[in-house]
Amino acid sequence: MSRTSIASTPALRNIATRLRIESIRSTSEAGSGHPTTCMSAAEVVATLFFAEMRFDPKNPRHPGADRFVLSKGHAAPLLYAAWAEAGAFDRSELLRLRKLESDLEGHPTPRLPFVDVATGSLGQGLCAAVGIALNARRIGSDSRTYVLLGDGESAEGAVWEAAQAAVYHRIDSLCAVTDVNALGQSRATQWKHDLDEFARRWRAFGWHAIAVDGHDVDALVAAYGQARATKGRPTMILARTLKGKGVAAIEGKNGWHGKPLKKGVETDAAIAELERQLVAESGPRPAIPPPSGSPRPSHAPDYGALPAPAYSIGDSVATREAWGAAITKLGAIDPRIVALDADVGNSTFSEKFEKAHPDRFFQHFIAEQAMIGAAMGLASRGAIPFPSSFACFLGRAADFIRMAGISDLNVKMTGSHAGVSIGEDGPSQMALEDLAMMRAVPNCTVLYPCDAVSTERLVAAMAASHGLAYMRTSRPKTPVIYDASERFPIGGSKVLRQSARDVATVVAAGVTVFEALKAHDALAREGIAIRVIDAYSVQPIDRAALVAAGEATGGILITVEDHYAAGGIGDAVAEAVADRRFLVERLAVREIPRSGAPDELLDKYGISASQIVSAVKRLAPGR
Amino acid sequence: MSRTSIASTPALRNIATRLRIESIRSTSEAGSGHPTTCMSAAEVVATLFFAEMRFDPKNPRHPGADRFVLSKGHAAPLLYAAWAEAGAFDRSELLRLRKLESDLEGHPTPRLPFVDVATGSLGQGLCAAVGIALNARRIGSDSRTYVLLGDGESAEGAVWEAAQAAVYHRIDSLCAVTDVNALGQSRATQWKHDLDEFARRWRAFGWHAIAVDGHDVDALVAAYGQARATKGRPTMILARTLKGKGVAAIEGKNGWHGKPLKKGVETDAAIAELERQLVAESGPRPAIPPPSGSPRPSHAPDYGALPAPAYSIGDSVATREAWGAAITKLGAIDPRIVALDADVGNSTFSEKFEKAHPDRFFQHFIAEQAMIGAAMGLASRGAIPFPSSFACFLGRAADFIRMAGISDLNVKMTGSHAGVSIGEDGPSQMALEDLAMMRAVPNCTVLYPCDAVSTERLVAAMAASHGLAYMRTSRPKTPVIYDASERFPIGGSKVLRQSARDVATVVAAGVTVFEALKAHDALAREGIAIRVIDAYSVQPIDRAALVAAGEATGGILITVEDHYAAGGIGDAVAEAVADRRFLVERLAVREIPRSGAPDELLDKYGISASQIVSAVKRLAPGR
Repeated sequence: MSRTSIASTPALRNIATRLRIESIRSTSEAGSGHPTTCMSAAEVVATLFFAEMRFDPKNPRHPGADRFVLSKGHAAPLLYAAWAEAGAFDRSELLRLRKLESDLEGHPTPRLPFVDVATGSLGQGLCAAVGIALNARRIGSDSRTYVLLGDGESAEGAVWEAAQAAVYHRIDSLCAVTDVNALGQSRATQWKHDLDEFARRWRAFGWHAIAVDGHDVDALVAAYGQARATKGRPTMILARTLKGKGVAAIEGKNGWHGKPLKKGVETDAAIAELERQLVAESGPRPAIPPPSGSPRPSHAPDYGALPAPAYSIGDSVATREAWGAAITKLGAIDPRIVALDADVGNSTFSEKFEKAHPDRFFQHFIAEQAMIGAAMGLASRGAIPFPSSFACFLGRAADFIRMAGISDLNVKMTGSHAGVSIGEDGPSQMALEDLAMMRAVPNCTVLYPCDAVSTERLVAAMAASHGLAYMRTSRPKTPVIYDASERFPIGGSKVLRQSARDVATVVAAGVTVFEALKAHDALAREGIAIRVIDAYSVQPIDRAALVAAGEATGGILITVEDHYAAGGIGDAVAEAVADRRFLVERLAVREIPRSGAPDELLDKYGISASQIVSAVKRLAPGR
Repeated sequence: MSRTSIASTPALRNIATRLRIESIRSTSEAGSGHPTTCMSAAEVVATLFFAEMRFDPKNPRHPGADRFVLSKGHAAPLLYAAWAEAGAFDRSELLRLRKLESDLEGHPTPRLPFVDVATGSLGQGLCAAVGIALNARRIGSDSRTYVLLGDGESAEGAVWEAAQAAVYHRIDSLCAVTDVNALGQSRATQWKHDLDEFARRWRAFGWHAIAVDGHDVDALVAAYGQARATKGRPTMILARTLKGKGVAAIEGKNGWHGKPLKKGVETDAAIAELERQLVAESGPRPAIPPPSGSPRPSHAPDYGALPAPAYSIGDSVATREAWGAAITKLGAIDPRIVALDADVGNSTFSEKFEKAHPDRFFQHFIAEQAMIGAAMGLASRGAIPFPSSFACFLGRAADFIRMAGISDLNVKMTGSHAGVSIGEDGPSQMALEDLAMMRAVPNCTVLYPCDAVSTERLVAAMAASHGLAYMRTSRPKTPVIYDASERFPIGGSKVLRQSARDVATVVAAGVTVFEALKAHDALAREGIAIRVIDAYSVQPIDRAALVAAGEATGGILITVEDHYAAGGIGDAVAEAVADRRFLVERLAVREIPRSGAPDELLDKYGISASQIVSAVKRLAPGR
């Protein structure tokens, strides 16, 4: 049953036709884009927007509004046409599609107020939708979340990770639609129009699945009603459609993916053909129901009033454990903080948060894409999610992290078990490329504390500043070296050792800080002085401090990191001082490591105190 | 029915018990590891190795041998114990588990001759097994592929990608076993011991699924026989087991993941308890059937005899199209060459290969993890796989690529549609971090040709040299600038413009080569000379040429790349010349880009000819 009795069948059919016309017109004008992908889903979007969803076109971010995620992001022109039809902006804007000065990009991004998460990398929308729905639960909203998938993207494993997460969390406010148009980019999809292939899979994963004719507006509206009535589990509507529906020359034909109609005769004829499909309507146009209720607002607490860390200098605490304690402490003062795990909470120490705040802890089992995707959805709606895993396994979600960067989302990732210092478990468990991955997201803050005090301070700094951020934590226990009153601004660093006679600067972070301190002492016994910097903020890095140190130490900087040479701290430091003609020597892991004891590995792979001592002696002239 | 009538039930039960004992003993000695994970799967491994698989313990790489992939890599001690039991090496070696000088690492790697692909990042083994089975088909072998998964890792989407790939390719030589021990790392698994939850999913995905008691050797042997008799589709055996089976103190108990028994009393008592479970045997020990048949050998052709590329200077050809033509040409002379696609073959041009060599083309639809995983398996058994997608979507398989590096596999990846030069499709389709990702794999060759001739030559160079490699191709057509006779060794570069008066060196690759050439001409008109280098080999990079150019041009190097600043060509160049105190200025994309026309975007994001001109004027003194 339709939410609104006014939404008549002829009106909805006409809206679908108009959405098709606008999708063709805008892509023809742009000279690129995916009109046929829009045309298959026109009835699905028309019915969702004008007979089901509750929202305010003038305030799309309303906290109580139903959400729509276009997982098949290449149907962006359809999405834009729907919002124009709803009155969010003037229809004429649609003709600026894909132009540099327009926010109507080739695929949707949150530069547009009605887009929660960027899409266009297939198979991510359902993951984000799970997070959006979890956020509605967090704020006590009855907002529903709708997501439109392509049939082709159902091949992505991430879709099945999200499928199980939604069932595990019993999310019945989630209604997905698969646009089964049977054509992928290069060929027919794997299962073509066999809706049973889809239904069997979704039902096996615990979803309520409904098969409908995706061009039948009444059937779609009825299916949404069924979904709303389904309790305890999500619903998947499998909509049989035709790619290019409505224009005979392209309808159901392969070879039309990502191809606009030619401006002029070809486009005009197609639009004329569609205009002939408009039917007579009676009565007023469908009214969009407003967002329901007033969800609990969640205000930011005064982070400045946080008590100092309770650690004392000399305590021995792994940064991973300090991280778990820190997010738990923050969770107590900030209801926006949530944590997500992928079944390693007893290693990352997110289990501390789970014990204290079970209602804001979301287990994803071993499914890192779904975990990061849900964090993206949660962040897009006001939560401050802290997803975590072993740092190497966050690479499983690398493409999600890329898209979180494009979306400028407030996700705070943490990766534990960094580097060879994990020891005997061997290379498959060692993150040695995570800094490169995270630094390659230009708007991602990258933090790498060496002790419990800096960890706790930096967790608070991450939470208090907007944007994507990553913290790298370590497995071994390390001594607390900072006084609890010390401050750690993002973009800063700490000079740990210095003298007027320093012959080189060693830039370290995390576990290598302690190697650098040991090297300092060993060299001091030989009368050689070095400067030691803790570069806890890897991105942005503290350029001013590095330049100053380099100038004071003969232009010799030695970086040392428990990470591969490419893309890590060495590269970050080198770029920061690029205009100074300093010598930047990078001590880093340069081959695939083996299993072994942590100290053995640090030495074998060139990042131990003795390796630093050798580098200083080799590079510093006149010592 | 067992393959070998000699394998009696008591003998198999005793082998399982001995595997448990060795798993406990070796992890206790190492002081770390996952004994309970080994113990649940002891009967599965005992029956596979001693009543089902055909192999030669002294020649585990035999081309006709059945294969075993331990997807749950943390059960490595069990795998090692099985090979020792089979006679591959002396049992005493097991006590060197996890020691730096031993190849018996914490998780299996192909440093061991009986390991095809490294495991330990969960959810990858089945993907690789699909590739191993496809390779058996390629070489005409009836070798069967067995893979052991954990129940926890079934949450990984990659498992379901592989599930559909195996069915799509109708791989009935594949038999998987899930060790359903109901306990994950931090808690009970999602579906605990409910085998029906698993069976429903596997059947929905088209597999033959069999549920058995995983500690009943007869039931396991019978299930393998059923799997062998199943035609046209793969089989999944769901084995109900107990973690820690056989030792009452830990059997079926949570909190024992990744925890060895304490050396001494605790270990001794457990081993004594297991020894009491040994039963009387009669007759000789089970004999392992030898590998069957002699698969077609596939020899390397003489790559030196390849004809020169057929392009002429001035032709306009996208490097992606030249890549498609090049792999097709190679495929004609080298039967080891195979291609894998994820439904973008008409954009990457792998469709050329598909048309010419359909039997060696493996479609994976939109499932990049399964695609790279299958390539890993194919490579591990002698194929030279060329998997390809849009470069940004290879990030979906970042963790597989990391593991391919750990495995030192001969996989030749290609990513098309690099950078902002793709234009209007927008940031979700632009690879701007792929070079960082690939450079962060220390043994990965990274190539980035600018024209069709260099593309074709470098494809041949990739295929001819062993190891992991990545080629980055571009969307726009670019002019051919190299004579067909030109050679492009890996690790080389080309000086495209030089004079005795050069005030700076511009290092470019791919589309920016043409921006650099334009800048050269524009500056020449003002009387300013610059050197231009095509750094087509990004890793290894041509250090000698960069140092020479820097020394000849006042130590000023300007890198320009259609990639983010972190981890790309600028960082590679800066590190190569780190000891020279040159000034390395990096022109790169430094923010999330937008949709727009390619030329507009190159300029807006700072990597166009005019931006190079500005940089030269800013940096080169006394010009």
